[in-house]
Amino acid sequence: MSPKITTELLKHLRQVMKNPRYVQEPVQAYIVPSGDAHQSEYIAPCDCRRAFISGFDGSAGTAIVTEQHAAMWTDGRYFLQAAHQMDSNWTLMKMGLKDTPTQEDWLVSVLPEGSKVGVDPFIIPADQWKRMSKVLRSAGHDLVPVKENLIDTIWTDCPQRPCKPLITLDLSYTGVSWRDKIVALRSKMAERKVMWFVVTALDEVAWLFNLRGSDVEYNPVFFAYAVIGMNTIRLFIDGDRMMDPAVREHLQLDSTLEPEFKIQVLPYGSILSELQAVGAGLSPKEKVWLSDKASYALTEAIPKAYRYLTPYTPICIAKAVKNPAETEGMRRAHIKDAVALCELFNWLEKEVPKGTVTEIVAADKAEEFRSQQKDFVELSFATISSTGPNGAIIHYKPVPETNRTLSVNEIYLLDSGAQYKDGTTDVTRTMHFGTPSAYEKECFTYVLKGHIAVSAAIFPNGTKGHLLDSFARSALWDCGLDYLHGTGHGVGSFLNVHEGPCGISYKTFADEPLEAGMIVTDEPGYYEDGSFGIRIENVVLVIPAETKYNFKNRGSLTFEPLTLVPIQTKMIDVNLLTEKERNWVNEYHQQCREVVGAELERQGRHEALRWLLRETEPLAPVQ
Amino acid sequence: MSPKITTELLKHLRQVMKNPRYVQEPVQAYIVPSGDAHQSEYIAPCDCRRAFISGFDGSAGTAIVTEQHAAMWTDGRYFLQAAHQMDSNWTLMKMGLKDTPTQEDWLVSVLPEGSKVGVDPFIIPADQWKRMSKVLRSAGHDLVPVKENLIDTIWTDCPQRPCKPLITLDLSYTGVSWRDKIVALRSKMAERKVMWFVVTALDEVAWLFNLRGSDVEYNPVFFAYAVIGMNTIRLFIDGDRMMDPAVREHLQLDSTLEPEFKIQVLPYGSILSELQAVGAGLSPKEKVWLSDKASYALTEAIPKAYRYLTPYTPICIAKAVKNPAETEGMRRAHIKDAVALCELFNWLEKEVPKGTVTEIVAADKAEEFRSQQKDFVELSFATISSTGPNGAIIHYKPVPETNRTLSVNEIYLLDSGAQYKDGTTDVTRTMHFGTPSAYEKECFTYVLKGHIAVSAAIFPNGTKGHLLDSFARSALWDCGLDYLHGTGHGVGSFLNVHEGPCGISYKTFADEPLEAGMIVTDEPGYYEDGSFGIRIENVVLVIPAETKYNFKNRGSLTFEPLTLVPIQTKMIDVNLLTEKERNWVNEYHQQCREVVGAELERQGRHEALRWLLRETEPLAPVQ
Repeated sequence: MSPKITTELLKHLRQVMKNPRYVQEPVQAYIVPSGDAHQSEYIAPCDCRRAFISGFDGSAGTAIVTEQHAAMWTDGRYFLQAAHQMDSNWTLMKMGLKDTPTQEDWLVSVLPEGSKVGVDPFIIPADQWKRMSKVLRSAGHDLVPVKENLIDTIWTDCPQRPCKPLITLDLSYTGVSWRDKIVALRSKMAERKVMWFVVTALDEVAWLFNLRGSDVEYNPVFFAYAVIGMNTIRLFIDGDRMMDPAVREHLQLDSTLEPEFKIQVLPYGSILSELQAVGAGLSPKEKVWLSDKASYALTEAIPKAYRYLTPYTPICIAKAVKNPAETEGMRRAHIKDAVALCELFNWLEKEVPKGTVTEIVAADKAEEFRSQQKDFVELSFATISSTGPNGAIIHYKPVPETNRTLSVNEIYLLDSGAQYKDGTTDVTRTMHFGTPSAYEKECFTYVLKGHIAVSAAIFPNGTKGHLLDSFARSALWDCGLDYLHGTGHGVGSFLNVHEGPCGISYKTFADEPLEAGMIVTDEPGYYEDGSFGIRIENVVLVIPAETKYNFKNRGSLTFEPLTLVPIQTKMIDVNLLTEKERNWVNEYHQQCREVVGAELERQGRHEALRWLLRETEPLAPVQ
Repeated sequence: MSPKITTELLKHLRQVMKNPRYVQEPVQAYIVPSGDAHQSEYIAPCDCRRAFISGFDGSAGTAIVTEQHAAMWTDGRYFLQAAHQMDSNWTLMKMGLKDTPTQEDWLVSVLPEGSKVGVDPFIIPADQWKRMSKVLRSAGHDLVPVKENLIDTIWTDCPQRPCKPLITLDLSYTGVSWRDKIVALRSKMAERKVMWFVVTALDEVAWLFNLRGSDVEYNPVFFAYAVIGMNTIRLFIDGDRMMDPAVREHLQLDSTLEPEFKIQVLPYGSILSELQAVGAGLSPKEKVWLSDKASYALTEAIPKAYRYLTPYTPICIAKAVKNPAETEGMRRAHIKDAVALCELFNWLEKEVPKGTVTEIVAADKAEEFRSQQKDFVELSFATISSTGPNGAIIHYKPVPETNRTLSVNEIYLLDSGAQYKDGTTDVTRTMHFGTPSAYEKECFTYVLKGHIAVSAAIFPNGTKGHLLDSFARSALWDCGLDYLHGTGHGVGSFLNVHEGPCGISYKTFADEPLEAGMIVTDEPGYYEDGSFGIRIENVVLVIPAETKYNFKNRGSLTFEPLTLVPIQTKMIDVNLLTEKERNWVNEYHQQCREVVGAELERQGRHEALRWLLRETEPLAPVQ
């Protein structure tokens, strides 16, 4: 990787920072955050403005350019990568280290008195604007919204905003029609006494209307906003996508509908002016509901007294609780995904000893097998295919420079998943194609114990996921080991592979309680820098648990694994397992055999079936 | 309990709310919080203003009186008690229930436009003022500080503020001199670039100067403030306590000292004016450090730009990490405490079958045995002595109306502790003096498993206590059971039995990480309304743990029980224990035998020693 030369770009940016064509008054600093106007985690190429200006293309980072300085804040995952990708114009601000200033504090330390700090009000979330502007104001500076994105003004070959065709999902996939979702949303709105709801997150728009797109890689979403009133529905979307007869039919655009279900289609770019009009027309006590992470621009469109902001929107919460149709879809998707992985691992077992399989080859092969499955759409994230020391890089993605050949002497870690029309998958398996060392087996078994501790946990209704995180670590902690990431995240239903509002992590306390129907991952790991990485990840469904007693009639929950891919028994030190854990593994493998075995049989994949049967032999008894 | 008749009192209060002698402008509402000017959990009788005006004397509750209404907010522990103690003038606001308005929302709903809401600025913490005043202001009202406490103006027989003699603690108890504590504090101040530190919490003043008092029952503290500058020490304290030669000698008041260690003694009541003078004399960049829970009055004395507020003060954090002298003192105190409890339980075993021992008699007997021990000062909280259904009332304190006789047919729960000059104790044991049912044993054993899971947990340095809370619940959760309180709290060293900044609870995420030397309780429980209560509580010391590996060189921690009182084996269903748990119990009991046995022998308490030996027989092997 050679760094991007940014001298000219920065010069150009500093010019437009003073150019009255773009800024009312010159700005002495300009902030380039990571996100897009929807605060998405995965973004389209046209939104990779921070990567454009700096060269650093990791998933998290904020650039700030002043007349004298250019600085980049990113976290521990990306210190090395950012240092490689940026030239000497840039200062790397290592977040999480003690001496690294916050963006605000740094700005205060470098800016001349009474400076203006500009930012695109569509990209910065309202809560972040508030925090930042408070600090700047108290130091005598001003955070100012710059309407035109200054990066866009200098990005001459900026790719177009994607505008790909939509996929309509019928009831067999979604379980609930978009009309019924609107009805449910309006009833939540009535409960909170709000008159309007603004849908800003792309996956929320997609979920609400039972539509999918492909504007962003890996995430089946499309650029759009929606504003739902008690009697109106406005959808802000561009292109000729609304000309598609299937979409028109799906949204009943040409039917005579009750007026409250009539969808008014408006240009994507008109959201701000339409919302300002809504804001201007509010009567006292008419509130507008927005996510507190919505952009500053949209939040400001509603006068403060009329805003109703919550960390999680009612759509985010409804979307997290999968209905039976979605759950069944997720089950089907996971069976197909397991078929693909049985094929892959069977293939790897044969090919790895030949010394010709690289991480990239293995990743491509995984995609190939997945793409053979019904309703396959695309991958759900960039495959993490890593062997030996690369496995210890938690967010590794093989590229030619780092591409390593799989061998019988190293642990191989594959974290991968796909979007199928009926569901989203995300699974990690850690395999050894030769003979693992006692130490590797020991570490693998601790991780497995943690995986089982979460998967088999029984907990009261109303428990938040973060309360389960320590269960995943306990076996590792006992031996002085640990892993430095959370244990699980929510998973969408043919939607984003990461979704709120629930998860299993020591870091988040703002998560919503787990309830039956929610789907999360269970993925503890252990990473030894320079040697290997281990992670065992299943997607699991929250289900009611039967218990002997029922304190305060609260009811209990537990998890059911949706992922049904064998866990390599060769890596397990059976003597470190309790009887209960051993039974868990055997029952899990029995289920893989029955469910995935039947599908392999049906698809005539006999060799992979034999592999599955071999890999799911019961564990030897604990000695 | 008959309710307090408050009609005349409320009439009187409403008069002073309009009396220009006390208020600059009439206030339409007056708030009476629970606390004192130091935000103490336990308060002196003269500070029980909320109990005086309402009759409700629980430990938590806020009264608000308007011209038309009188309302009391309290939590689930006190719904019944508050309803019994208050007359019909009062409306009970049940906190935690869905339909209960917050104090602010309620005020907004009942107040006439543009109202003034008064509160004593010394009693309300600054963070609470901020929250409340924001809501009131946005609804067109004003929160106003009322200098003179309006309850005090109508409380004609208000007890005097206590002003009891002080106890000086030498190095053998404290391990560190007050001078060295000041030096350490000033170095923390220099690190944060603050010039002044204001000590507002009573236990922080006591700890800093190695002094103790008895102004508040159960808490060995005294009414005082301190303001520490980089070169000055000001102690605000009343009475002739500074005339005591031992105190003068201890504080070196009459010695020729370096000026920066010279303590300037000022009247308790002069804190505000002195602090205002400090505030007025600050140069730019001179910050003043206060707890964010300090009173609004003291916080306001410092202009906003000069305030440095943190949730935990450096004293709070330093105080939590016990030094070797303190740890040794705590050990000694717990051995003496165990001697007293061995005597008590031996006595109860003989006396309970006679049917003459009530909860109050048992509590008194516990105090009697404790008071026989060296350096006993007083109890550390009101003894929870509860049998049968009373045990299910988590914060029960026996009173004549509820006093129940212990019997061989009911579970008895004793949660008690004492202040010794060398340490503070807090221990809960649950006993059966007849034959427990299989169900009682089952529940007890789940609680014991939870207790052991925390006590034996190994976890990385830097782990916050709340991440351990679920370990205590796992065995109960497996069977659909749970308990509705946290698992542990910090314990002072001959100081408050509840202290920050660490603890073990699912409720708190603002706790500081556990570190070696901290002392907390481990007290899971199970409560069956109307039947029985079970709790097993030890005070435990955080110690370094030896582990097989040492990830990222972080080091690991675990707990060592300081409490050494047998856990009744009769209540244990051994078949529900794992081998590891059984060993834990046997090793714990072996330690009780050795350590407490030796002390019983030394004190010639042979009958109690025989009881101890009987109660610490190893458990039968797991079948």
